[in-house]
Amino acid sequence: MTESPVPPPPPMHHDSPIYRRIADRLRDQILSGALDDGDRLPGENALMAEYGIARATARQALAVLINEGLAVPRRGSGVYVRLFRPIRRHGSRRLSREQWGRGRAIWDSDTPGRAYAVDEVDLRREPASTPVSRALRCDDVWVRHRRYSVDGRPVQVATSYFPADIVEGSAITLPDPGPGGVYARLDDLGYPPVHFTEEVRARMPQPRETASLDLPAGTPVIVISRIAFAAGGVPVELNEMALDSASYVLQYDFDA
Amino acid sequence: MTESPVPPPPPMHHDSPIYRRIADRLRDQILSGALDDGDRLPGENALMAEYGIARATARQALAVLINEGLAVPRRGSGVYVRLFRPIRRHGSRRLSREQWGRGRAIWDSDTPGRAYAVDEVDLRREPASTPVSRALRCDDVWVRHRRYSVDGRPVQVATSYFPADIVEGSAITLPDPGPGGVYARLDDLGYPPVHFTEEVRARMPQPRETASLDLPAGTPVIVISRIAFAAGGVPVELNEMALDSASYVLQYDFDA
Repeated sequence: MTESPVPPPPPMHHDSPIYRRIADRLRDQILSGALDDGDRLPGENALMAEYGIARATARQALAVLINEGLAVPRRGSGVYVRLFRPIRRHGSRRLSREQWGRGRAIWDSDTPGRAYAVDEVDLRREPASTPVSRALRCDDVWVRHRRYSVDGRPVQVATSYFPADIVEGSAITLPDPGPGGVYARLDDLGYPPVHFTEEVRARMPQPRETASLDLPAGTPVIVISRIAFAAGGVPVELNEMALDSASYVLQYDFDA
Repeated sequence: MTESPVPPPPPMHHDSPIYRRIADRLRDQILSGALDDGDRLPGENALMAEYGIARATARQALAVLINEGLAVPRRGSGVYVRLFRPIRRHGSRRLSREQWGRGRAIWDSDTPGRAYAVDEVDLRREPASTPVSRALRCDDVWVRHRRYSVDGRPVQVATSYFPADIVEGSAITLPDPGPGGVYARLDDLGYPPVHFTEEVRARMPQPRETASLDLPAGTPVIVISRIAFAAGGVPVELNEMALDSASYVLQYDFDA
């Protein structure tokens, strides 16, 4: 174990709980650069000895920094300053026709040089729920649910809905939709997407999202709801995504 | 007090803590529509009586739903299903030249018909920090820090940085920058913004964000970092925003 980088504690004011004050001090060190990306934070034992506190209190202090996204626990090893190497998800470029029109996977644009995988695919046809039916203006839908992992870590779950009338019998209803993915297949069917609307929210995860994405406590999800429109404003896909917020930066470019 | 809408508890499995299972049941009722927007959830006393649990456990169950953004506490009154009436922030339309070029405030586009206020403004000139200097390619900056409230509730804090060489002596350095705001003034100075890049992240708030935005526990913030570019790719503003995630939907539109 490396030496604790925390200097001997000066007297602290008693207007906030001790775990908060310890977290404040560690945060200052991270934000000032005294503790750098990938550095190990003092462990529970070190904090207990240094501040004369109980293990639960030490754990609370570290949890504050984990919840703020400034640190990550590694199982059986300790808590580290987060080496934030996010996926840069470029809202418009990734969905350009040049991308899927040439048979490229959209994810190649998000994760150049990194290993990504679709490690869960679930397909079904079902009657559309009220919100889905309202978005897609149809009664029955094909549903594609996937989970994506990057560098072996799950980062996103996504559920896409397609009007069954349009996609029935196409490769969109198969686990592998083929080169260029579902947008290239919509193009084959005469419904190439020409416009996208993305709605972005953030919130704490629901239990099934925590489980699917293996999220540490206190990590929010970014929720994106996208509708793809073909010519004439015909909606051809609704995609509901939940992203591990610690893994993503979304980038949007536009002109004044 | 209204009658509790929770039916008598059927036997529950013991694979998760009781507060989780109570939260699961309440969530099901919210997501199924049995409990509607604005309905009051059963209070701590009702949950204690119904499930034979301690107050802390009842509180934990309600906290789960609050953290997921499905419910909100109202001081001294109880916990209510969230009436989600978010601010729809339209990424590109709000920043179009038509907006600020006609002397309109950008916020008029975000909050039609709602009362919004800039209730804190702080101005200073200072040497640029390393990341700010890198983004704006200059040594000294004017800093505009503001807090925005909608319907009396703080929803966003924003800190904008401008190259001091460009904006010195202009109304951008005054509390009220005048009609059309800072972009109209940059236009007056010969640097109208023509392009914007927004980076969007989500994370748990830092303590000063929790304080400024009066965030309930477990509410993440959406963090947006935007650079405005004038012709020739000259960066003229860096704006770092933190948004109450419960108050916002960000919308982005783009073509394939």
